[in-house]
Amino acid sequence: MAAAADEPAATADSRRRGPRGPYAAGRESQRTIVDAARAVFAERGYRAGSLRDVGERAGVSAANVLHHFGSKEGLLVAVLEAREASSGKELLERFRQGEVVSALRDLVRANSLDRGLIRLYTTLGAEATDATHPAHDYFRTRYSDIRGYLTTAIEQARRHGTIPPGPDAWQMAASLLAVMDGLQTQWLLDETFDMTAAFDAHLMSIGARGDDAG
Amino acid sequence: MAAAADEPAATADSRRRGPRGPYAAGRESQRTIVDAARAVFAERGYRAGSLRDVGERAGVSAANVLHHFGSKEGLLVAVLEAREASSGKELLERFRQGEVVSALRDLVRANSLDRGLIRLYTTLGAEATDATHPAHDYFRTRYSDIRGYLTTAIEQARRHGTIPPGPDAWQMAASLLAVMDGLQTQWLLDETFDMTAAFDAHLMSIGARGDDAG
Repeated sequence: MAAAADEPAATADSRRRGPRGPYAAGRESQRTIVDAARAVFAERGYRAGSLRDVGERAGVSAANVLHHFGSKEGLLVAVLEAREASSGKELLERFRQGEVVSALRDLVRANSLDRGLIRLYTTLGAEATDATHPAHDYFRTRYSDIRGYLTTAIEQARRHGTIPPGPDAWQMAASLLAVMDGLQTQWLLDETFDMTAAFDAHLMSIGARGDDAG
Repeated sequence: MAAAADEPAATADSRRRGPRGPYAAGRESQRTIVDAARAVFAERGYRAGSLRDVGERAGVSAANVLHHFGSKEGLLVAVLEAREASSGKELLERFRQGEVVSALRDLVRANSLDRGLIRLYTTLGAEATDATHPAHDYFRTRYSDIRGYLTTAIEQARRHGTIPPGPDAWQMAASLLAVMDGLQTQWLLDETFDMTAAFDAHLMSIGARGDDAG
């Protein structure tokens, strides 16, 4: 985690102070800055949104933002990880309960209400294909992890009959992830493009049953 | 066309000089610069490749590059359009001959041999989701056109039985385009990812027959 590296070294004594000690305060400022960064990057984009804008919105200096996150890119990775932590867990829980098709449909619906965040993921994911980009390892690992979770979920859905037999589950996981990403790009380029309808049609074309939750 | 806008206004007389007149010479320098730009952007990326690098490779000054294309972004649009003109026609011809499935498989194979170009499309396409980006209209129109061509090709393939009946052809066109884009991102992030195998598996999962050319 980029954030943790910049925290001051704590003595054993300060650690004993518990959740109200300096660590908790540091985490709280970090959370405030991450919320501000998410809003700034979503409104103005990553390239155009400055550390100064983020600091102003969070009520701290740009230097303080750098102190906590090391770099603008480190801050962005923290923004992405914060999102992952909150929405990823719920999604994985639904996968485990065998609700992969309806969970993905709901995910695409939720994404269609958060244009700024999806633009962030789309732009940064593309930039990060450059191996020297600071978010390269983050995105590479993220895609690999998602393909793994989806593969397990597809295998389970096949046992339940909500996804028909067909190609290798891992390949299908890759193409499901791909279609969600690709539809996002089309929707970002043209907001009249209905990505939820296109995704539903895609699920129909692979014979997936969206009522797997029922 | 960004390129045409910077050409000097021609008199009726100069136009009559035909293919060896000043227009032909201007087009030839433009082609040389576009080839150089494609190589530079593919090697170093769009952000890191400078107009000076492009000029050096083409044997002209950076100012001359700007004279022809107006801006770095204008040059990039010309690079993309040059590619479109050469490979797009062949693809459309195969669509017209009812070979949509095999034409798409061949396209994904060809793309898997041109990592630099695919990175260009992926990075610029994502950047261009910003409505103020100079390539925004280009990408918006490009996606809309491709969906249109694919829709017609899918309708024809359904009449020939190489793509099974299913969701609306336009929706299927959108998701086919999406899966190709999304698999490219996964492949760019991890070159061990086999995007041709994943695309073939995807075609299998929608029941498309890859032998439609036979």
